[in-house]
Amino acid sequence: MKMAALSATTGIPVATIKYYLREDLLPAGERVGPTQASYDDSHVRRLRLIKSLVDVGGLSIASTRRVLESIDADITIGETLEVAQSTVSENLDPATIDEASLQLVDEAISGWNVHPMNPGRLAAARVLMTFAAVGQADTRGWVDRYTAAALKAAEADLDEIETRPDRAARAETVVIGTVLGDALFAALRRAAQEHLTCERYGLPPG
Amino acid sequence: MKMAALSATTGIPVATIKYYLREDLLPAGERVGPTQASYDDSHVRRLRLIKSLVDVGGLSIASTRRVLESIDADITIGETLEVAQSTVSENLDPATIDEASLQLVDEAISGWNVHPMNPGRLAAARVLMTFAAVGQADTRGWVDRYTAAALKAAEADLDEIETRPDRAARAETVVIGTVLGDALFAALRRAAQEHLTCERYGLPPG
Repeated sequence: MKMAALSATTGIPVATIKYYLREDLLPAGERVGPTQASYDDSHVRRLRLIKSLVDVGGLSIASTRRVLESIDADITIGETLEVAQSTVSENLDPATIDEASLQLVDEAISGWNVHPMNPGRLAAARVLMTFAAVGQADTRGWVDRYTAAALKAAEADLDEIETRPDRAARAETVVIGTVLGDALFAALRRAAQEHLTCERYGLPPG
Repeated sequence: MKMAALSATTGIPVATIKYYLREDLLPAGERVGPTQASYDDSHVRRLRLIKSLVDVGGLSIASTRRVLESIDADITIGETLEVAQSTVSENLDPATIDEASLQLVDEAISGWNVHPMNPGRLAAARVLMTFAAVGQADTRGWVDRYTAAALKAAEADLDEIETRPDRAARAETVVIGTVLGDALFAALRRAAQEHLTCERYGLPPG
């Protein structure tokens, strides 16, 4: 299909598609004339993926390029996961996180095979550091219960990834699951909080 | 204590504290002279809370003011939760979300007492809309398993809130839990993904 049809199919403006082409997010179409190129379903698919990473995932163009490269590269699922995780995670300096908070995380995930520089380990420790700094106590196993819930979600992620037919499809699901999974869980937790608040304390007035 | 001591105790620069005072995030100190005021532990506590909401929660000054007001106001925990949720959630227009995705969410949370305009319900539907748009299928109960995990986390949230001694302390935990809970879960899910990837596929090379 031509550029105009690609734009109509995906609902993405021609100017935006040209921008993605220039930024190397979208592979060039097949040259069919001096000023024309032809695009196929792989372009439609890739454009939708870019749009979801940018719009819903909130990724920058540079981050989007990085995770797309990890889908296209001949690397393992574990390596794709590493790229996806580091791209969507803040780059924390371990020196800014206190030992006590890191230890709390390590106790919670005790027995897990996790690299000390895993962005999740550091980010979790920073949350616990903040939690303590504002005088909050964990008296009902809050962290342990979040850890158990996170393990369940990660199992669902990996089970879903395993159903995909080939390496590229699995890598795509890794990237999408990493970016969208955070948003899905956060959203469902809000709904669950409202539900439980109603159950325990009754409906809000009005 | 004087402003200089407040700054030293919290590690927050005097200029930043003055900015928070001007923006009505921090209550004024007790006037003890024509140009001096005295601050107490409540100011230390509030400053740490502001810092965590802004730095770790990524809230704007306006959003921070809104959630602080909900802590100070004489409203129910359910109402505080509503303010905290709407402040940290994107304001989605239900008209932009397709019926099929809303229905998928409603099936997953079937039986829950959730208002149709709950920001979590709408945000979850938008994630599922995006998931479908990029050609991803949910073949292993991904959404249901996330829903179950989210309910467990919300139970942990509410159990923790219930241990707090009074309304203001409970409201503070609601706000902190809403803002930091997303970050904690996302972090622990990354660690869990790495752990399970190692378990299922072995350690990455090198």
